[in-house]
Amino acid sequence: MDGEGIWHGGSLGAARRLFPRAPEPWIDLSTGINPVPYPLPPLSPDLWTRLPEPGAQAALEAVARGAFGAVEGVDVLAAPGTQILIGLLPSLLPPRRVAILGPTYAEHAAAWRAGGHRVTEVADLAAAEGADVVVLVNPNNPDGRLVAPATLHAFAQTHAGLLVVDEAFADLEPGASLCPQLPDDGIVLRSFGKTYGLAGLRLGFALGGAGEGGALVARMRALMGPWAVSGPACAIGAVALADRDWRARAAAARAADAGRLDALLAPHARAPMRGTRLYRLLASEDAPALFARLGRAGIYVRRFGHDPSLLRFGLPAGEEAWARLEAALAFQGPPPHLRHSVRGEKPRH
Amino acid sequence: MDGEGIWHGGSLGAARRLFPRAPEPWIDLSTGINPVPYPLPPLSPDLWTRLPEPGAQAALEAVARGAFGAVEGVDVLAAPGTQILIGLLPSLLPPRRVAILGPTYAEHAAAWRAGGHRVTEVADLAAAEGADVVVLVNPNNPDGRLVAPATLHAFAQTHAGLLVVDEAFADLEPGASLCPQLPDDGIVLRSFGKTYGLAGLRLGFALGGAGEGGALVARMRALMGPWAVSGPACAIGAVALADRDWRARAAAARAADAGRLDALLAPHARAPMRGTRLYRLLASEDAPALFARLGRAGIYVRRFGHDPSLLRFGLPAGEEAWARLEAALAFQGPPPHLRHSVRGEKPRH
Repeated sequence: MDGEGIWHGGSLGAARRLFPRAPEPWIDLSTGINPVPYPLPPLSPDLWTRLPEPGAQAALEAVARGAFGAVEGVDVLAAPGTQILIGLLPSLLPPRRVAILGPTYAEHAAAWRAGGHRVTEVADLAAAEGADVVVLVNPNNPDGRLVAPATLHAFAQTHAGLLVVDEAFADLEPGASLCPQLPDDGIVLRSFGKTYGLAGLRLGFALGGAGEGGALVARMRALMGPWAVSGPACAIGAVALADRDWRARAAAARAADAGRLDALLAPHARAPMRGTRLYRLLASEDAPALFARLGRAGIYVRRFGHDPSLLRFGLPAGEEAWARLEAALAFQGPPPHLRHSVRGEKPRH
Repeated sequence: MDGEGIWHGGSLGAARRLFPRAPEPWIDLSTGINPVPYPLPPLSPDLWTRLPEPGAQAALEAVARGAFGAVEGVDVLAAPGTQILIGLLPSLLPPRRVAILGPTYAEHAAAWRAGGHRVTEVADLAAAEGADVVVLVNPNNPDGRLVAPATLHAFAQTHAGLLVVDEAFADLEPGASLCPQLPDDGIVLRSFGKTYGLAGLRLGFALGGAGEGGALVARMRALMGPWAVSGPACAIGAVALADRDWRARAAAARAADAGRLDALLAPHARAPMRGTRLYRLLASEDAPALFARLGRAGIYVRRFGHDPSLLRFGLPAGEEAWARLEAALAFQGPPPHLRHSVRGEKPRH
């Protein structure tokens, strides 16, 4: 756990503290970020020096509307990453009963609790029936469980309350998005950085339906004010989201990577591999030992406080990374009585 | 007025709609952004592709603490621009009586009103005595009025309530900042983009004192979550804010520019020029005509809904811009009966 009590992937600082003698460079498989980033277009100096024109964010949002397949009447808001939207949304509502389909990305529950709401984790939509707010990550992180958009849409017709769907990993999954049929009281969150491999840019979106969903998105827009999204993010986002060909090629390439990863990990798995095209979830009795073995080899994967038998693997970025992963997985290590060095590798936070 | 009812500088789209026949390129003097930007350091690809490491924002905040002269016990928070902090702060408090020293940057009053607070504009600190929250921009935008930090500090000792000081233009003004003696119930906002000429980067800071100030800054930190600041902003900000020499040279150079601008504008002024080293405020009976004359010459300056006799001039960016400004100011234009083209130049928003 880090200082905030939530484990995140993506911190090589944490990896280096855990495994100080691991070889550099580290291979970071602890996130679900596309390892093949969208090529940066040339950036005009004005994007850095000037405030973004009001039209720049509006243009980005129009491109995003098309890319996500959102219909008219849906409010599309660009933000400096999805995380800030996750944090703001609960602050806009009086105390509510919130049901979160879990286990899932922990920031949702943390944000709703910090906003003074009563949060329960539920296993499925049926168990969420009585809640004022229903939150799910779809496809889910880390297990990839997908609730069909048609099912969500039907649920929203009978559920009197807000439906929040975090589609951080929906871009590359065919037919996974609720955006084309967003209910009035629905909000969809979309992440840019994961699909396009540009997580440092900080760009995300909230889409709100024609009812309470859109009203809340409008309030987030007002709170963030003009210029919340940087000039480079407006420009790069607009180019990348308009590039349907790139996204189609990325979806195919990452599906192939995911299949290759499943094949590599299958010998270690006690159950079929799950996940999305950007990460794969391994269930294994040996997960803690495997985490340590990979760490000593300079490969950082994601483990989970709620279930030590799970490890999530992002996709390697090139043949050298694939080869190092393959070698580390094949290596059986010293016999148990010589494994005392593991003791020093517990998280310090 | 634009769609939100607040006039901002910095939108050349608006300028082009007002003066469609003006020569390109436009000279944008409508902001207070340093026209000589901090030179961009080389940016590692990781800054774009990876989530910012938790340590990156902390390192940026530590450098900012030093640059602003904040003492221990002050909480320093980096954000994607100051505007989002202005928007968030009022949402954290129950309805309060808010006194804003004005006229000033209009987003403060708009944000506090949107947050459900009772806002009054007051002329000076004495008139703010009974308020729960006192807000001032120091030095003030657009007139440059500076309340001495010692005066503010003394005021805070007797004033039972929150003191919010927007120091967006304090960086280049010697002795203007309250940061070195931030009161417990004080919050200072600092802008990065104006001083460093990198407004598109989106970077700003909130500093909170050891009491309610820091508590509110901590709540903004929690709402924005990790990674609100982009990788490039973390890296560029840390390098630039540590560069004391550059800032000292910029302060001297912009002071010289400001003096040069005052000399140019003096023949049009009915009162001494005011402002900061990044903008100068002209008071002139001819301000509307001058705005139109400059606009037709492709030079965009800032006017104010509350007082049509005022124009704010940012600093020209080089000798060509200075020459065009000088020529436009000297040009007397056609006689009044030939000025019908002005009619089409009213704001459309």
